[in-house]
Amino acid sequence: MAPNPRRARIFFKEKGLDIPSIEVDLFGGENLKEDYLSKTIWGLCPALELDDGTIISEAPAICSYINDLHPEPPLLGTTPLERAQVISCDRHMENSGMQSVIYAFRNGYKDFALRGVGGREGDKIIPELIERGRNGIKIFFKRLEKQLSNAEYIAGNFYSMADITGLVVIDFAKFAEFSIPSNNINTLKWYEKVASRPGTQV
Amino acid sequence: MAPNPRRARIFFKEKGLDIPSIEVDLFGGENLKEDYLSKTIWGLCPALELDDGTIISEAPAICSYINDLHPEPPLLGTTPLERAQVISCDRHMENSGMQSVIYAFRNGYKDFALRGVGGREGDKIIPELIERGRNGIKIFFKRLEKQLSNAEYIAGNFYSMADITGLVVIDFAKFAEFSIPSNNINTLKWYEKVASRPGTQV
Repeated sequence: MAPNPRRARIFFKEKGLDIPSIEVDLFGGENLKEDYLSKTIWGLCPALELDDGTIISEAPAICSYINDLHPEPPLLGTTPLERAQVISCDRHMENSGMQSVIYAFRNGYKDFALRGVGGREGDKIIPELIERGRNGIKIFFKRLEKQLSNAEYIAGNFYSMADITGLVVIDFAKFAEFSIPSNNINTLKWYEKVASRPGTQV
Repeated sequence: MAPNPRRARIFFKEKGLDIPSIEVDLFGGENLKEDYLSKTIWGLCPALELDDGTIISEAPAICSYINDLHPEPPLLGTTPLERAQVISCDRHMENSGMQSVIYAFRNGYKDFALRGVGGREGDKIIPELIERGRNGIKIFFKRLEKQLSNAEYIAGNFYSMADITGLVVIDFAKFAEFSIPSNNINTLKWYEKVASRPGTQV
């Protein structure tokens, strides 16, 4: 259910690639144990291991690598401006959307009592962050609706990584008991289109 | 002094470009006023305005655009693997480093009493986040030292955007009264090299 690994899984499926995966037990803190940290210092999922043992961590980095090797179909834009807008919008989905859901979800979850921040130990959860997260999700939905009033997809009139992240954020928001507000007409239309793509069924 | 605009300024200077800039009064909340929000829904700096009025927001998106138009000198890697490692490491500098400094700095700053999150209003600052931030900075320095024991620069044996962000984070950490620990030999050596580049003097 972790959102960042799902971004990569959808990206692979949209590219038509079947990449073997190993599940990491985030609830059990497997990502904080020596074995995982010896592969990636920063302790976060997903990470892509190449045949020679090289590790690429972070979903956008993994997707950049895969996209360079398999450019079709384009999911990171094609022109310099499109490419920039995909990066920009993907970040807004993360920083405005995903971060808010994580605040609302993680700080109320007792398994994470001393793991308030992903990838490390010793941070007490902070209940006030739940409110910050809930406020953030509301603002996120308002701004996303405005963003989708300008174009068919989040980064413009083409499907991209930003839509993948947007979808993943919205599905993840269900764990914090949030769904798309009923007056977000553009968002609802967009969601229906993106959520029904064969590539997003993972 | 805001870290994200500085990342873009250094990038431009390293590329030898002189791009006109307009300062936005973040302390005064100019980024949350209608004029700025009409340009970029998400309310964050920096934003690049093109001649036709198109706006690109977020430092990494602006830098991708500039790098596509002006590939030399390369600052985002050249091979698919290098490109991925720059994105990955740049994100770790942000999520592990910059986020921690922002927690430690912003939540103790009374001008931000009701602006605990960048780009929006209504989030009370949360004093507990100062501790989370300070803990995060310590972990960041430990992991960065480990990262720099593998290669000369943060993303590998080449200077990149990840070094720019790392430098900006460390300089910004001074506002939270943190500096590179004296036993971080690799980090100190790296910092001296990067901080003395003509391109980073902005």
